[in-house]
Amino acid sequence: MDHIFQVIMAGGGGSRFWPLSRQARPKQLLNLSGRDILLNETILRMEPLVSRENAYIVTNEEQSELLKTLLLPQVPREQVLMEPMGRNTAPCILYAALVLHKKYGDGVMCVLPADHHIADPEGYRRVMEEAVRTAEETEKIVTIGIVPDHPATGYGYIACGEKSGARGARSVLRFVEKPAQSVAEEYLAQGNYLWNSGVFVWKISVILSAFARLLPEMYEAMQPVYEAIGTDREQETLRQVYPGLQNISVDYGIMEKSEDVLVFQGDYGWSDVGSLDALPVFHKTDDRDNLFLGDVLALESSGCIVKGQDKLIALVGAEDLMVIDTEDALLVCPKNRAQDVKKIVEALEKAGRSQR
Amino acid sequence: MDHIFQVIMAGGGGSRFWPLSRQARPKQLLNLSGRDILLNETILRMEPLVSRENAYIVTNEEQSELLKTLLLPQVPREQVLMEPMGRNTAPCILYAALVLHKKYGDGVMCVLPADHHIADPEGYRRVMEEAVRTAEETEKIVTIGIVPDHPATGYGYIACGEKSGARGARSVLRFVEKPAQSVAEEYLAQGNYLWNSGVFVWKISVILSAFARLLPEMYEAMQPVYEAIGTDREQETLRQVYPGLQNISVDYGIMEKSEDVLVFQGDYGWSDVGSLDALPVFHKTDDRDNLFLGDVLALESSGCIVKGQDKLIALVGAEDLMVIDTEDALLVCPKNRAQDVKKIVEALEKAGRSQR
Repeated sequence: MDHIFQVIMAGGGGSRFWPLSRQARPKQLLNLSGRDILLNETILRMEPLVSRENAYIVTNEEQSELLKTLLLPQVPREQVLMEPMGRNTAPCILYAALVLHKKYGDGVMCVLPADHHIADPEGYRRVMEEAVRTAEETEKIVTIGIVPDHPATGYGYIACGEKSGARGARSVLRFVEKPAQSVAEEYLAQGNYLWNSGVFVWKISVILSAFARLLPEMYEAMQPVYEAIGTDREQETLRQVYPGLQNISVDYGIMEKSEDVLVFQGDYGWSDVGSLDALPVFHKTDDRDNLFLGDVLALESSGCIVKGQDKLIALVGAEDLMVIDTEDALLVCPKNRAQDVKKIVEALEKAGRSQR
Repeated sequence: MDHIFQVIMAGGGGSRFWPLSRQARPKQLLNLSGRDILLNETILRMEPLVSRENAYIVTNEEQSELLKTLLLPQVPREQVLMEPMGRNTAPCILYAALVLHKKYGDGVMCVLPADHHIADPEGYRRVMEEAVRTAEETEKIVTIGIVPDHPATGYGYIACGEKSGARGARSVLRFVEKPAQSVAEEYLAQGNYLWNSGVFVWKISVILSAFARLLPEMYEAMQPVYEAIGTDREQETLRQVYPGLQNISVDYGIMEKSEDVLVFQGDYGWSDVGSLDALPVFHKTDDRDNLFLGDVLALESSGCIVKGQDKLIALVGAEDLMVIDTEDALLVCPKNRAQDVKKIVEALEKAGRSQR
């Protein structure tokens, strides 16, 4: 098979990264590593398995202009697909699959979130290569599950069954939603549960068949879009069709209902970088477990995450604090309240503030 | 007696107020109340007992230019006295007494720190008036001691004896330096100890006699300055004389060695505003004990002191934190580490940083 594509889902908001992320500049468009924005790192991480020229990005109309400015220059701009509104991951993936099908007929399509971090990209590519080969060789839906290192309650889980095939994939028994703490602990003890990291690999023809079978209304509703793809009516047609589509995730709409799903184990230092306290995954912390970016002077402080803007930030006796300074907004928050930063964004939205 | 003067000691550095205070802009030149700088509030607080036209300010050469810019317009600028270097309070007070003596002969001189806060200015003026009348009517050194409300270890104490005279003053048994915690608790239990707030009232002739008797070398050394006062050699003579003067406080050099000291009790909401955690004395806190100045959005936060500059400051789940933002430096520090802010200034000095 000639064509392997990467489809990057890049439409998220990322309010938990405020004030670094904004409505107009979501997490995937932030350079958190000091090297490149998360979106570009996601694309580059797939090379040489998938070239950047074969990257398709699905975003929304609002964010697309900035995204195109920041996107790797070698990615053709017509490969930036723009949803007129967010309708969760199922419509997003179906739209991308239709685009690829119309242009290429068939091929392998890797669906990747735009805003994750992977500490061991080589290990990642090794697993992705097995997944791509398996998708090529079979009619299966393939996913990657992350080997859990703690009983996280913030992720969905994948229950694995027997080994299936030569490449080390296992069958999927079921997908489960974010569990309660005690349930998560049980999963970890049982040893056959993986985190659902939202990475999927399949042939274009396979996923389109799955949509036709499992989400037939959505599949039918998208046929006018399929007709319009590549014409000057594409965006207009999307705007007409999208409001009527079911708001549903691919996990819930396809994965959980499919029989033929295989899973590979990923153990490559994955992080979904879900909130600001994950910033240290990109950097080395000092010997007091501090991450200081920018002009920081800290005395007797430990466990802190500080990101400066253009001014000196001084700490004395600070413990486990996050201080994130930007041009027009400053956040100060204990690290263990990182999940609640989104409440700030909600309050700013409610107040109609420009800093949201 | 016609002349009552206020001599404001305004030469301090105030590194514990960094980043609001700087080497070039000490605490007394900060507007912490939202009304006026502490120096001007000190002067105005004495009216109508002492007019602002009768205010003399002792500062250092470095700070004098900014001070003159910010000083109340009605205070004649030649009444800003400039020490060529800091030599503690004894030389400072002697210099001011000599200036007043040369210009007016005699009069009552109130010596006041420039950077304190007083919640009840009327109560303060009532006590000051009694002190001024007592100084007029006697040959005594008069001081004001603050009725302590907790066993502070950061102030010197005054041990009071018997009532002396009609106005309610008491004799001073002794001045004691900053005590250990257990000693401070004992003082509070004994009930006859007051905090030394650095306020002194005396006739010019009385304090000059005291200097001549108790610090004769300093008194002699300052005679060339006395000759030069009011001439164009004044500053130059100060520069020649000052390096040779003993570096000593008036408390240690004069007060502790004088027999004839009277003390009035002050109970007027005094604060020396010794560090940033004292900022709430100037303002109302909210019902979660927060003081927010500027554009602050706080969720589930309490006991915090936030002073913004030009950007939004957002807190989530912050407890007892200080966040002080200025144009070129930002401080984040737990409230109970406010005393250690000076360590930041020391570190900046060591590094030769501009933000010190």
